[in-house]
Amino acid sequence: MKERLCIIGGVEAGLTAAAQARRNDPGIEILVFEKTDYISYGLCGLPYFISGAVGDIKDLFLYSPSYFKENRNINVLTGHRVRRIDCAQRKLDVEDQGSPGQVKEFFYDKLIIATGARAIRPSGWPGADLKNIFTLRDLSSAVEMKETIREEKPENAVIVGSGLIGLAMAESFRSLGLRTAVLEKEEQILPLFSRRTSERVREELKNRGVEVLTGARVDGFTGTERVEKVSVNGKSLPADIVLLSIGVVPETDLASSAGIELEPLTRAVKVNRKMAVSVPRIWAAGDCVHSTSVITGKPVYMPLAAITDKQAQIAANNATGKSSLYRGTVGTLIEKVFGLQVARTGLTEKQLLEERIDYVTREVRSSSRARYYPGSEPIGLTLFLETGSKKILGAEMTGKEGVDKRIDVLGLAILQGLRNRDLYDLDMAYTPAYAPSRDILWLASLK
Amino acid sequence: MKERLCIIGGVEAGLTAAAQARRNDPGIEILVFEKTDYISYGLCGLPYFISGAVGDIKDLFLYSPSYFKENRNINVLTGHRVRRIDCAQRKLDVEDQGSPGQVKEFFYDKLIIATGARAIRPSGWPGADLKNIFTLRDLSSAVEMKETIREEKPENAVIVGSGLIGLAMAESFRSLGLRTAVLEKEEQILPLFSRRTSERVREELKNRGVEVLTGARVDGFTGTERVEKVSVNGKSLPADIVLLSIGVVPETDLASSAGIELEPLTRAVKVNRKMAVSVPRIWAAGDCVHSTSVITGKPVYMPLAAITDKQAQIAANNATGKSSLYRGTVGTLIEKVFGLQVARTGLTEKQLLEERIDYVTREVRSSSRARYYPGSEPIGLTLFLETGSKKILGAEMTGKEGVDKRIDVLGLAILQGLRNRDLYDLDMAYTPAYAPSRDILWLASLK
Repeated sequence: MKERLCIIGGVEAGLTAAAQARRNDPGIEILVFEKTDYISYGLCGLPYFISGAVGDIKDLFLYSPSYFKENRNINVLTGHRVRRIDCAQRKLDVEDQGSPGQVKEFFYDKLIIATGARAIRPSGWPGADLKNIFTLRDLSSAVEMKETIREEKPENAVIVGSGLIGLAMAESFRSLGLRTAVLEKEEQILPLFSRRTSERVREELKNRGVEVLTGARVDGFTGTERVEKVSVNGKSLPADIVLLSIGVVPETDLASSAGIELEPLTRAVKVNRKMAVSVPRIWAAGDCVHSTSVITGKPVYMPLAAITDKQAQIAANNATGKSSLYRGTVGTLIEKVFGLQVARTGLTEKQLLEERIDYVTREVRSSSRARYYPGSEPIGLTLFLETGSKKILGAEMTGKEGVDKRIDVLGLAILQGLRNRDLYDLDMAYTPAYAPSRDILWLASLK
Repeated sequence: MKERLCIIGGVEAGLTAAAQARRNDPGIEILVFEKTDYISYGLCGLPYFISGAVGDIKDLFLYSPSYFKENRNINVLTGHRVRRIDCAQRKLDVEDQGSPGQVKEFFYDKLIIATGARAIRPSGWPGADLKNIFTLRDLSSAVEMKETIREEKPENAVIVGSGLIGLAMAESFRSLGLRTAVLEKEEQILPLFSRRTSERVREELKNRGVEVLTGARVDGFTGTERVEKVSVNGKSLPADIVLLSIGVVPETDLASSAGIELEPLTRAVKVNRKMAVSVPRIWAAGDCVHSTSVITGKPVYMPLAAITDKQAQIAANNATGKSSLYRGTVGTLIEKVFGLQVARTGLTEKQLLEERIDYVTREVRSSSRARYYPGSEPIGLTLFLETGSKKILGAEMTGKEGVDKRIDVLGLAILQGLRNRDLYDLDMAYTPAYAPSRDILWLASLK
């Protein structure tokens, strides 16, 4: 009998793991269970599909189930929801969505859990179940939102939450001509960033006609049939379509009911550096597990594509007998907010405060290209340095261009434990069209 | 009496050194001698001034002599050519170009030599002194070229040499509507790059209507009054304007006639890690000195702005009693060739062969953004890895965008002595608008 690897989830981590397992082991049988009808797409592309910037839904798909079958001998079962993991018998109960209630059993030798995350949908808000109130975590919801906008031609969009997906969707709504408001319960938008960066982004949103309300207490939604108004801070805001974007939580129900341990801080599936869970023969990867900060060594929850991909490969390596360790995350992320690039890496200011790490802040300003070169734009950098050692602990950048280009250099500097001073020795690629002769990262080394 | 720091040269290194010396020492007297009438501009901006992309000559200037006097108490004497350095008496003989033949003496306590480099003008070519045959090493020659193009409306431009300045000028000539040919004596253009990269650039030049001739043996120039034809490989090419761009040599006449040692390999002024020359109280920086490869530890000649700036600061630090060491260069550079970004870092393939270092080559291809995101362009990466250890020794990248963004990450990786495998642990900033979820640098880690 061939050994069998089962994988739960076929969006990002699941299929990366499947492909990697096949690369390592041509003989193993691989079965992927995906509860929806769609596989192998990037969640981050959904706002651009809704706006029409990505015109064809097919462009979002990397591979089809038949591609996996024919080219990699991987069986992907869409519309198959795993109902239960039986660790003792190494068995999955799987329901074919086409025949509800009918459960098939699949035995596994190895199992990878890649169940992802789900959007938080607060239960306490009256009217939260009205039509046209969406979350955006899978392709089905994106298709539904796009259809709704096309057919009902809503005029007013309200986004609850100002994280990455919320702000990406603000741009999509505006580009489709909707009046758009963003409601954030905290005192600033983009809670993962410093106040200063947040204000810069707020300014950009304002310039693009997005109404932003911070300190926003949502009381509920009203409407007949579909949502018509959001009640916020005691006032009423028109809303023909609502996106709830107040965060995601790891999808751990299957794992925890099978007796698999969760990590207490993040409430994600607990994994070691091999991406193995607390039960033998099972690994997990992607948005359902935690990551580890390479700086503090502590568990962090960062549901990001770049992390997912890596963890999935490492899980598959270990599942197929190729030892491989996950080092952790630097914490790099970037967002396009209309014409503004907003990026960060390392620890957030909030993490620094929580970890009680002494730090100093350094501000640097420069330009994306030589000042005299057409198209040059101002860019700003905030560095968080360890007091004393001046090791770089975190960084934030904003600008209309050139931020994407520089944030990864800082990410690598942090991964290597460098001080800002160490960037002095790096000669950076200079030509007037792409950088000033004194790059902002070099100026940062002098601070 | 105040201590006096004299500086020879006021373009890039000289004024950076002056400003840094003032920052370190508010009391020292600072005198800068610049032989031309222009100070404080970036040489790399000249092609863009000629093409008109940078419209106003004033945009190229960072600061004026009066700015230096009023704001930093630095005396900049333009039109003052230093004729002789007398190291024993610590004296400079200086000729005011306004009163030719009249020499004034200036004594120094400390001296920084920043005489730059000069373009090679081969003496063996008949007709090389004809009008409209230019080199491009200072603002005067740029102004003159621009005037010539405006007044004489040349139709045919010939560029001899295919280095960075040559190719930048190919774009300028084409944007001004001139028929443009590039002649390169080697078998490939861009001799600092691998054959593969060179071919990619040649393709771009061809697409933009630039004629490229490699293996080109120039026999001389003919014309009455001004150049009319270039004789190459026995044939005759129409040429109303010619740019000689066959390289630069360090300007060392003053230093060597004062008994200051030159570095034998590069023929540049020899400096130690403090940027001190072989004679006490004298430092040197910029295009007149060599640099040191951080990889091989050997002297290299790289007349690049980012290196100049750093060396000038370090020279000034040591001249004002603040000990500071120059670590060397990684060898990063980037060039815009029409719509193509061409960049490199680390050792060139030629250096690897010369140093007899065993290396393997890895090719990686990916896209600048998520493949489905509008504007995504293919990018290519060539890695040179040390055989066995897989340490990154050098890298080249080409693409229409996204190259500038990634080459500095590789530069830092090389500076840190990393293997390609080490890039696996770096999570890079991902959002579909700026990168694919599997970045080319991450793919490179798997090779």
